[in-house]
Amino acid sequence: MKIALYPGTFDPITKGHLDIIERASHLFDKVIVTVAVNSSKTPMFTTEERMELIRSAVKEIKLKNVSVDAFSGLLVNFARKKKASALIRGLRAVSDFEYEFQMALMNRKQAPTITTVFLMPHEKYTYLNSSIIREVSRLGGDVKDLVPTAVQKLLDQKLKTR
Amino acid sequence: MKIALYPGTFDPITKGHLDIIERASHLFDKVIVTVAVNSSKTPMFTTEERMELIRSAVKEIKLKNVSVDAFSGLLVNFARKKKASALIRGLRAVSDFEYEFQMALMNRKQAPTITTVFLMPHEKYTYLNSSIIREVSRLGGDVKDLVPTAVQKLLDQKLKTR
Amino acid sequence: MKIALYPGTFDPITKGHLDIIERASHLFDKVIVTVAVNSSKTPMFTTEERMELIRSAVKEIKLKNVSVDAFSGLLVNFARKKKASALIRGLRAVSDFEYEFQMALMNRKQAPTITTVFLMPHEKYTYLNSSIIREVSRLGGDVKDLVPTAVQKLLDQKLKTR
Amino acid sequence: MKIALYPGTFDPITKGHLDIIERASHLFDKVIVTVAVNSSKTPMFTTEERMELIRSAVKEIKLKNVSVDAFSGLLVNFARKKKASALIRGLRAVSDFEYEFQMALMNRKQAPTITTVFLMPHEKYTYLNSSIIREVSRLGGDVKDLVPTAVQKLLDQKLKTR
Amino acid sequence: MKIALYPGTFDPITKGHLDIIERASHLFDKVIVTVAVNSSKTPMFTTEERMELIRSAVKEIKLKNVSVDAFSGLLVNFARKKKASALIRGLRAVSDFEYEFQMALMNRKQAPTITTVFLMPHEKYTYLNSSIIREVSRLGGDVKDLVPTAVQKLLDQKLKTR
Amino acid sequence: MKIALYPGTFDPITKGHLDIIERASHLFDKVIVTVAVNSSKTPMFTTEERMELIRSAVKEIKLKNVSVDAFSGLLVNFARKKKASALIRGLRAVSDFEYEFQMALMNRKQAPTITTVFLMPHEKYTYLNSSIIREVSRLGGDVKDLVPTAVQKLLDQKLKTR
Repeated sequence: MKIALYPGTFDPITKGHLDIIERASHLFDKVIVTVAVNSSKTPMFTTEERMELIRSAVKEIKLKNVSVDAFSGLLVNFARKKKASALIRGLRAVSDFEYEFQMALMNRKQAPTITTVFLMPHEKYTYLNSSIIREVSRLGGDVKDLVPTAVQKLLDQKLKTR
Repeated sequence: MKIALYPGTFDPITKGHLDIIERASHLFDKVIVTVAVNSSKTPMFTTEERMELIRSAVKEIKLKNVSVDAFSGLLVNFARKKKASALIRGLRAVSDFEYEFQMALMNRKQAPTITTVFLMPHEKYTYLNSSIIREVSRLGGDVKDLVPTAVQKLLDQKLKTR
Repeated sequence: MKIALYPGTFDPITKGHLDIIERASHLFDKVIVTVAVNSSKTPMFTTEERMELIRSAVKEIKLKNVSVDAFSGLLVNFARKKKASALIRGLRAVSDFEYEFQMALMNRKQAPTITTVFLMPHEKYTYLNSSIIREVSRLGGDVKDLVPTAVQKLLDQKLKTR
Repeated sequence: MKIALYPGTFDPITKGHLDIIERASHLFDKVIVTVAVNSSKTPMFTTEERMELIRSAVKEIKLKNVSVDAFSGLLVNFARKKKASALIRGLRAVSDFEYEFQMALMNRKQAPTITTVFLMPHEKYTYLNSSIIREVSRLGGDVKDLVPTAVQKLLDQKLKTR
Repeated sequence: MKIALYPGTFDPITKGHLDIIERASHLFDKVIVTVAVNSSKTPMFTTEERMELIRSAVKEIKLKNVSVDAFSGLLVNFARKKKASALIRGLRAVSDFEYEFQMALMNRKQAPTITTVFLMPHEKYTYLNSSIIREVSRLGGDVKDLVPTAVQKLLDQKLKTR
Repeated sequence: MKIALYPGTFDPITKGHLDIIERASHLFDKVIVTVAVNSSKTPMFTTEERMELIRSAVKEIKLKNVSVDAFSGLLVNFARKKKASALIRGLRAVSDFEYEFQMALMNRKQAPTITTVFLMPHEKYTYLNSSIIREVSRLGGDVKDLVPTAVQKLLDQKLKTR
């Protein structure tokens, strides 16, 4: 059985991420979407919220072989524990490229048998990421075409109560 | 009448910005240089100073159809209020490219009839931006060829009084 | 009156080009789509066919202020003759960037008062160009979502008769 | 069973290609290395030679689930016939990026259920490709660290008999 | 006598830096590795530690014409004081490119006779930098192939005592 | 004595090349500008013309330690024969970057002790190369600010007699 990890901050999950998850779910027997718990950054959504938003989005498009988890520490240690043979990364644009390659390389040095696999999201999500979603939402802009329903709701709620 | 907005932080305006303003003033009937009031960043110059420096620089090169304004919130809302049909952005180098495209796309999602227009500054300003002006000035370097006269003066003044 | 030239090979026009034409038609009083007659390359479509395909596509989306022309020789000479103040170029991806900047610069050296204006096509056309249309069509692939109706027809016709 | 196609010109196969093949062979149940028969280019090696060089290189590193084939026409048609769910592409450098994305996108338009998977070769092969191998060999340079043994031999042979 | 400065943060020195130092030491009569003392960032290693780690690494590979120094303020002033005619910079990847060119340009404006010289590290260090070394070490990953021995030791020591 | 080779096609030499030659002449004791004799391309200028144009341009700016030569075959063999320790390359833009790195790497594999040194031309030459000079001249455009006087003359002569 081929298991793939899809690590990320997912603060929050966008339709671009969801598109990658769907593609990965067809390529691997099992996909574990893995929320990075990074003590040095302050995310907009808590780890629990981010996991719940992913679960809800995955459920909505009826993907059976996708689960959600969280990790801190070295990614490859978590991958080994989960017996994953692949790490999934979305590659949208040139600016992603070099950082992603640097991480892929470093992960390979730590765990040579785990391969980083780059997938390309649908072109309509080429310039989409979580930070622009947060920024536009905060300014009162409309992001409903770009995030799953549950994210839209929680964004509205968070921003209303400020 | 075709109105264009040229939004930016302009902290401070450089000769690269001024070059874009001049080009835009020939293409559109009216150009509104629009200082972004961003509550999360601490600029070197206040909004009022940044606006005044732009006004002074624009006056020096005698552009009649250029005015200066400030905005906070969602750029496209401000553009709609000003009846602008174009957003001007300078495009200097590959690193600008993807961020600018991301913003252009997001603005288009919010307001499909407002078009982002990219202009290329003179090649002598290819590697120039406000942050390197601030950095070099602070270290005592000479930036007088790269900024309008009024900026040079205010920089000198600010840095002397530290 | 602001006149803009949109030069290109258009061998054949794609929906990405058409998207740029539409945006430009809202920004300028008149847009002249200008087919480059380049003696050193052998295009798939004749100059006349390429012009006719553009005319047909422009008509279909009911743009009134767009005309079609052809030129050989130095672009800026043609632009001067047509009293154009702007050259339109679509900018899709990083690989376009440097060639386009080189051309923009050279044109500016030849005619300083004519400004190159870069527009960004819809993100669904980010990776689209004429050469991939020709290549995929020749191999029997389906490009009907990516080109205007008349192009699809003429492609079918040309490839059937081979 | 997950089948992946690894299409390319392989004129000739390099150690960079071989590195990608090995990684893919761990991720998928079956990998079919597929030589593109392109009537418009004149390769240095015949289709048969290129296939034989790949077979020999694959055998040397003892990969059991890798086979070699050739195709002409539309890649996705061949992929469908072979029941492949993935297309493998090596991604080395920024210059690869946009062409590869364009191809991936076009293939996806033709066959939405076939996913392009990008793998990163070992960093020592970052700047390696077939054309530089041919160029350096022709000038009498040494490429033995960069190609499989059989390629080195056939290169020597071809170049001696000129 | 041709003197070159190799400025950087070196927090800490990596084998990629050391590779550049070695190349530079063959090209110039004297190379001064120069640690930037930047009051606005908090480095992991003190200026003294960073200098000592460079000295130790340089000694290990027996480079005679390399010395280590530190500077604050404007780099070109320090370069003039040291009678350097060249500034050395490693260029690994596209993301380095534009920042480095911007700095090179600004330094040239300040001191036209001092030339920035870009060297390419060994390809095995293409995606290596100090910040990924710090990040991976903190998470408990293994970086011993990527840094000089003394750096490995001090990293271990610093991270153990946290 | 440090000797550097500056290889290129120089078809014809531009002011961008000349700018690099001047910088290199300050860094090295001797600079040999080396015209590549490439049997597979048909240059606009003969090898002799290209060498003569370089000589004339170098003489005009009074560089004493620069000579001109030609080579065919493997560059590093020629470099060894000339006892060069450095290969000079101009690096203008991202598109140069990867090809240049590929060549630098391959040359290093062939001759590990010869180092490729990248220099950045003046920013006004960022988007300049020989091919755009040829193209614009052929179309009747004006390139006199971008090439040495002798090149301008020979271009005029060649194009008049066609």
